[in-house]
Amino acid sequence: MAIMQLNIIPLGTKTASVGEYVVDFQRALLEEDVNFTLTDMGTIIEGETSQLLALAAKIHAMPFAQGVQRVVTQISIDERRDKSVGLGDKIHSVQERL
Amino acid sequence: MAIMQLNIIPLGTKTASVGEYVVDFQRALLEEDVNFTLTDMGTIIEGETSQLLALAAKIHAMPFAQGVQRVVTQISIDERRDKSVGLGDKIHSVQERL
Amino acid sequence: MAIMQLNIIPLGTKTASVGEYVVDFQRALLEEDVNFTLTDMGTIIEGETSQLLALAAKIHAMPFAQGVQRVVTQISIDERRDKSVGLGDKIHSVQERL
Amino acid sequence: MAIMQLNIIPLGTKTASVGEYVVDFQRALLEEDVNFTLTDMGTIIEGETSQLLALAAKIHAMPFAQGVQRVVTQISIDERRDKSVGLGDKIHSVQERL
Repeated sequence: MAIMQLNIIPLGTKTASVGEYVVDFQRALLEEDVNFTLTDMGTIIEGETSQLLALAAKIHAMPFAQGVQRVVTQISIDERRDKSVGLGDKIHSVQERL
Repeated sequence: MAIMQLNIIPLGTKTASVGEYVVDFQRALLEEDVNFTLTDMGTIIEGETSQLLALAAKIHAMPFAQGVQRVVTQISIDERRDKSVGLGDKIHSVQERL
Repeated sequence: MAIMQLNIIPLGTKTASVGEYVVDFQRALLEEDVNFTLTDMGTIIEGETSQLLALAAKIHAMPFAQGVQRVVTQISIDERRDKSVGLGDKIHSVQERL
Repeated sequence: MAIMQLNIIPLGTKTASVGEYVVDFQRALLEEDVNFTLTDMGTIIEGETSQLLALAAKIHAMPFAQGVQRVVTQISIDERRDKSVGLGDKIHSVQERL
């Protein structure tokens, strides 16, 4: 099991706000069978690495369909094989020890 | 106002778990006068850019004090000057439009 | 055409040096039909986004085969559709204007 | 000694090209007493962590002075205390072993 943080940055948009794209990404994720959460700095999704990268590719392509000419996408994957770690587990583990 | 995501990765630790360091970082942040939240992929902190970078430097130095020989620190800063955006604002803005 | 920066960070290795893993990644890339370059902070590869993500998945899996229990992989993809940008193009464009 | 990769992404620019900002960053760095190199995915600079973060803050502020309303800045710092690693050292170490 892995956890991925995904950030999609469309460049050359008219305004500094890119919330409309983030809304589209969230809608697309809601249609998938995945556990995810939106933070102030990206979307965090739980799954197998291959599934997560396929999702990243799908969402990365979305702004182009709306006329954006350049997209910078950042993906961070944290995969453990010594134990299963799902969404929220790392937070709980830290908070218990505070 | 800016929002920073901070990730501190100590290398060469004996085990794959680095939660003990994250606990220390959270304790250090609790002693600061800042608004922050822990996610599965990092800590997100709200503040002025100069204040945020000073915090990042402070936390980046912590694992060395515990004997770690190499630390990879990742900082992402999102600063807007057209409007004030604090912790949670981007999430609420997107959720309202879903 | 897109450009990807790939960083693979194995956690819980005995030492702070992870060069042996980077050597393996470079060898794997040399066997692929791709244009890539090694920098001090990662490997930069040119290709189509789907091809780049497939490569990232392949290289991300390599440390696990050597007994590493946790891998943090960071991928940054910069894709333009208004013009074709290959490896070195952005550097040359900036240097011409200095 | 540490190595920093710095990426400055101005949002809401009229076009998808942000090369003009990168040219300005390079000019600013040329006036500093630092060892740096431009790659296709960012600028890599060698120095002490405090010096590197001060430089990052300075360059992050530059697009605002030109009317940009939002800047996303990404900083990755790799600091070792078990040995001194400068610009190019990691590349040479890997290439020797290929």
